[in-house]
Amino acid sequence: MVDKLRVSIVGGSGYVGGELLRLLLDHPFVTVQQVTSERNAGRYVHFTHPNLRGRTRLQFVSVAELEPCDLLFVGLPHGATMERIDHFASLAERIIDLSADFRLRDPVLYERWYGKPHANPAWLERFVYGLPELHREEIAAARYVSGVGCNATATNLAILPLFAHNLVDPARGVICEVKVGSSEGGNSASDATHHPERAGVMRSFAPTGHRHTAEILQAIRRVGGETTVHLSATAVDNVRGVLATAHLFAQDGVEEKDLWRAYRRSYQNEPFIRLVKEKTGIYRYPEPKILAGSNYADVGFDYDPDTGRIVALCAIDNLMKGAAGSAVQAMNLMLGWEETTGLTFPGLHPV
Amino acid sequence: MVDKLRVSIVGGSGYVGGELLRLLLDHPFVTVQQVTSERNAGRYVHFTHPNLRGRTRLQFVSVAELEPCDLLFVGLPHGATMERIDHFASLAERIIDLSADFRLRDPVLYERWYGKPHANPAWLERFVYGLPELHREEIAAARYVSGVGCNATATNLAILPLFAHNLVDPARGVICEVKVGSSEGGNSASDATHHPERAGVMRSFAPTGHRHTAEILQAIRRVGGETTVHLSATAVDNVRGVLATAHLFAQDGVEEKDLWRAYRRSYQNEPFIRLVKEKTGIYRYPEPKILAGSNYADVGFDYDPDTGRIVALCAIDNLMKGAAGSAVQAMNLMLGWEETTGLTFPGLHPV
Amino acid sequence: MVDKLRVSIVGGSGYVGGELLRLLLDHPFVTVQQVTSERNAGRYVHFTHPNLRGRTRLQFVSVAELEPCDLLFVGLPHGATMERIDHFASLAERIIDLSADFRLRDPVLYERWYGKPHANPAWLERFVYGLPELHREEIAAARYVSGVGCNATATNLAILPLFAHNLVDPARGVICEVKVGSSEGGNSASDATHHPERAGVMRSFAPTGHRHTAEILQAIRRVGGETTVHLSATAVDNVRGVLATAHLFAQDGVEEKDLWRAYRRSYQNEPFIRLVKEKTGIYRYPEPKILAGSNYADVGFDYDPDTGRIVALCAIDNLMKGAAGSAVQAMNLMLGWEETTGLTFPGLHPV
Amino acid sequence: MVDKLRVSIVGGSGYVGGELLRLLLDHPFVTVQQVTSERNAGRYVHFTHPNLRGRTRLQFVSVAELEPCDLLFVGLPHGATMERIDHFASLAERIIDLSADFRLRDPVLYERWYGKPHANPAWLERFVYGLPELHREEIAAARYVSGVGCNATATNLAILPLFAHNLVDPARGVICEVKVGSSEGGNSASDATHHPERAGVMRSFAPTGHRHTAEILQAIRRVGGETTVHLSATAVDNVRGVLATAHLFAQDGVEEKDLWRAYRRSYQNEPFIRLVKEKTGIYRYPEPKILAGSNYADVGFDYDPDTGRIVALCAIDNLMKGAAGSAVQAMNLMLGWEETTGLTFPGLHPV
Repeated sequence: MVDKLRVSIVGGSGYVGGELLRLLLDHPFVTVQQVTSERNAGRYVHFTHPNLRGRTRLQFVSVAELEPCDLLFVGLPHGATMERIDHFASLAERIIDLSADFRLRDPVLYERWYGKPHANPAWLERFVYGLPELHREEIAAARYVSGVGCNATATNLAILPLFAHNLVDPARGVICEVKVGSSEGGNSASDATHHPERAGVMRSFAPTGHRHTAEILQAIRRVGGETTVHLSATAVDNVRGVLATAHLFAQDGVEEKDLWRAYRRSYQNEPFIRLVKEKTGIYRYPEPKILAGSNYADVGFDYDPDTGRIVALCAIDNLMKGAAGSAVQAMNLMLGWEETTGLTFPGLHPV
Repeated sequence: MVDKLRVSIVGGSGYVGGELLRLLLDHPFVTVQQVTSERNAGRYVHFTHPNLRGRTRLQFVSVAELEPCDLLFVGLPHGATMERIDHFASLAERIIDLSADFRLRDPVLYERWYGKPHANPAWLERFVYGLPELHREEIAAARYVSGVGCNATATNLAILPLFAHNLVDPARGVICEVKVGSSEGGNSASDATHHPERAGVMRSFAPTGHRHTAEILQAIRRVGGETTVHLSATAVDNVRGVLATAHLFAQDGVEEKDLWRAYRRSYQNEPFIRLVKEKTGIYRYPEPKILAGSNYADVGFDYDPDTGRIVALCAIDNLMKGAAGSAVQAMNLMLGWEETTGLTFPGLHPV
Repeated sequence: MVDKLRVSIVGGSGYVGGELLRLLLDHPFVTVQQVTSERNAGRYVHFTHPNLRGRTRLQFVSVAELEPCDLLFVGLPHGATMERIDHFASLAERIIDLSADFRLRDPVLYERWYGKPHANPAWLERFVYGLPELHREEIAAARYVSGVGCNATATNLAILPLFAHNLVDPARGVICEVKVGSSEGGNSASDATHHPERAGVMRSFAPTGHRHTAEILQAIRRVGGETTVHLSATAVDNVRGVLATAHLFAQDGVEEKDLWRAYRRSYQNEPFIRLVKEKTGIYRYPEPKILAGSNYADVGFDYDPDTGRIVALCAIDNLMKGAAGSAVQAMNLMLGWEETTGLTFPGLHPV
Repeated sequence: MVDKLRVSIVGGSGYVGGELLRLLLDHPFVTVQQVTSERNAGRYVHFTHPNLRGRTRLQFVSVAELEPCDLLFVGLPHGATMERIDHFASLAERIIDLSADFRLRDPVLYERWYGKPHANPAWLERFVYGLPELHREEIAAARYVSGVGCNATATNLAILPLFAHNLVDPARGVICEVKVGSSEGGNSASDATHHPERAGVMRSFAPTGHRHTAEILQAIRRVGGETTVHLSATAVDNVRGVLATAHLFAQDGVEEKDLWRAYRRSYQNEPFIRLVKEKTGIYRYPEPKILAGSNYADVGFDYDPDTGRIVALCAIDNLMKGAAGSAVQAMNLMLGWEETTGLTFPGLHPV
């Protein structure tokens, strides 16, 4: 038996950090060495992750106490990692960063969507975008992998097969509305997240200008497409879950069977993607509620041949396939392990 | 003091019937004469409408016992009224029908979207579409008024000012996703509405083919537009409420101030429409949660000048402005009463 | 037409303040003169009460700007009014205070449950406890009326008829569990009210030691009882609503018909209390969901003759009958108006 | 490597059946041979258990097609198994029955609470009650094990240490209110489970007379106690989860440290019981929301020395520790496997 991989988590008191811990504590090939949190240093991790009570005696430490390890997950707020990446790289041979800091390859695209120049553009090209369905081989060869944006991931997995198989009219653009739960916003309370205000909402919080647009554009280009992406985000009364509903227009002559073929070819060997398109039953299309805790992305579509509109759908758990799950999947690839290791929880029904 | 108007409700045990009763029992100028329900005949109305306990001693009667009255609200399932309209018209001088049977003027459009020929097309032209914001004068002069589709109403109120003021490129079409609560489906239980299955959903139930598309097309034509409407509907974990999020593309040269002007001109005198577009606070855009029980339609928009996309938003209570509320508003107009009579409940916060 | 009563609200930006405003703006005999909020001074009241958009042009003012008026509602945090009551009394002939400061007549009871001596005990006897069902005549004659505790009110209305009619064994005590929604905690965000943490809870937040115990003991004594009250409070995933489930033990020989008689005699003339106890249907016992926005208290019970246990139930909207609604009801009594004026909204179904 | 145990599930299309399948499909020592459902025979199991899509190609079969196996889980409606138990026993050496048919040892107790004589009382003594915390050794030696009632389990785990250590006054009885989610009622839709009616409830559905009282009485006797149990059940707006809040009265002289000692001694070696009683943080007492999918029972308490009241709390997932989880735990014991095998999912946070 070889030694287990020593992993640490920087910024591990948030919701993504909690999911990482849940996955890593049960992962057969790793041992969690340290978890940092400035605010909670000295507390047991179950203080902020109550589901892990009895599962570990780990206590949070300050990032100043961080020791060398084999692989470092970094879960700091957007903008914080780019300034400390050299330090982190001195501590660990491999890094998976969950923030938005290293998701984009193009510093111009970064500045356009994040409103300021990237502080460390030289590092952008060292990172691989951490969506295994898009960059599996590169991730397997990488030392530095970025996390993924949850809304971008739901949108990308819904639409990329259509661009990869050249089925859509790029001139019509992609119009995508993501419905999201409250855990997307992280664990900091605010007036808008106060339960009496947040419960029961259908709240348009980013009708235009959503930053994940950049990740979607980058991914479409990756598969050879070039189009305009119109993203809107609406908060609904869930804690976990994203449903992306994307509207695209087919090239002339496209039939439903062409869409089926594209999705099947793209995803037939993907361990975490399921095609969901049924004629009967309750769960006929992708539905995030049954994915809580799971790394699955359920993908489906509908097609209106009269107007040429394709409605492409993808449901994920934003904290899993949209963050911690994809990160662990990337780790498995980087280390040459079975890609699904530690990620086999199927989700619950009903829930 | 003149006598009160005698109104009866056919098919009054459902959710829209309950809201009609709530409004009419407190309306100063009407008296509710009869309420029919075949399934509940003989029961007190508070058996199916528990909020009305202590407010009335009315009991449901069979439609066979229906007596002449001054105005008849008909709330039967779609397809049932068109076959009995002559009988109902023999009992009441005025009729407001809440089903989809008389919403469309064009029998071809009806057949296209409802999948069969209209059974009584001669009556189509006798009805006026019951959205006061679109047909106020005709309603005031009408004997027969149809109800409105809730999803169509949210969409129409979001987008009609843009077509009326010729601000959008009709070639790009309208793509609209409505998020809806469970009361839209009525009060009949099914596997899909079973709480463990319906709670927490983000469920795409009509990605294409939604019948309300017909009402939206008819309304756009009414204000002089002609375009394609792409409607999708997603169920979320609410009981009441619709949020329509419509994506349209502006004509060249359109600026945000042009959009403001269009909405203000269209709605400045509307008693039940409020423009909601704030830069700060929690409620920056229309939000259905605060509209439960209210007849308001809150309308707002966002504009991305880089891509020309307009996101037009409208929130309503589907049972009120999307059904019973608009029907009572129409009744007020038909009888020459103050339009807001009996409709002044502002909604609750928080809720 | 006589002049309308000029009322002002001190501390009107919270949830109870919002409900007071909603009720008072539509009340036919009053005019709202001022509403204070230190945090929101200068803002329109619809900034914090979005349901009131378009209903008033009032802006919050600082309490320093408060002018004389006819009746003052005071909605400051617990402990803040007792120190400023002389000043408020110099501005208004009548005061209704919604905090806990003047609910108890006995300063010893206050100190026991609030953990410190009352700062202004001389004022305690000038106030009348504002539950009309218990103190109707005194309220009608009072200048100073306190509000009620929401959990105390639900418990009191469930159990007082049993003590008033001497049906329970006082030696067995009262064990009551109240289930409460998140609006009870007010509008200040905290870690515990953050939506991802608060949604879906069944959270025991006050298993023992709940302060409203004092109001229940005081009310039981008022009707001639003397017992021990064991109160527990559990937060559930609602915004509004309280359901009190009280367990008491009957005197020997008590039959169900005795319980019916007690409740009927106590409540038969009460305009806002409904007895709910049905053998069939969905709404067989009191249920807070249909009471949102309503001033009703629905009361019911069940009886197990084998063990002598009585389960006494009461459902209210905590912001209405448990706060603002009872306060307006008290105002109506103080001014000699019809008790139900401005309080006739019946609640919604479904919701 | 020995052969895997062949298990089948009779009545596997319901919610407990789905959880059994989820657990058994990932269990390292068993293989699922057959799953029966009369209504769904011929369908893939993911038709009713959508979370298992892609996890198995099993299809439901009719019970008439049931073949011999090593261990049979029976999940038929209450009353159905007792009449077919001889047949099932002819097919499998070991049986775990999840219904209420074999939970009680005393046919008199059965008839008292289920309202009719037991149809097969000879089998009652062959079964062991399937709560490992109470009957670990007997389960390990048993061929026939019953499931547990979810509400009984939450109550029992909350209170049994107090009786086992003789800390409570039995003359005062146990008053327990369980708060329950909608999955407790199974997967059959009804008017009461229709989402618009069931969402947002605080609904007293069994204020007295709950059948699980019998299981609680039996368990208390098992640890040497004898008292009266007063159970009430209230439905709240959750899908999964039970929170039992039990009120008991301490013997004279009992101090909080005695309670701590009792709980620690009872549960210190229990793999699925965690004591939760914190002075700070959000999760200070047991909370079912973080237990969805987990086999943990979180137990805590509060004590009021002034009145002697102990509030004993237990949170579980009704479908797991309250049904399928305990059943798999019992299977592990019966087969001599590590008790936690296949049951290590810790639950999610936030959710």
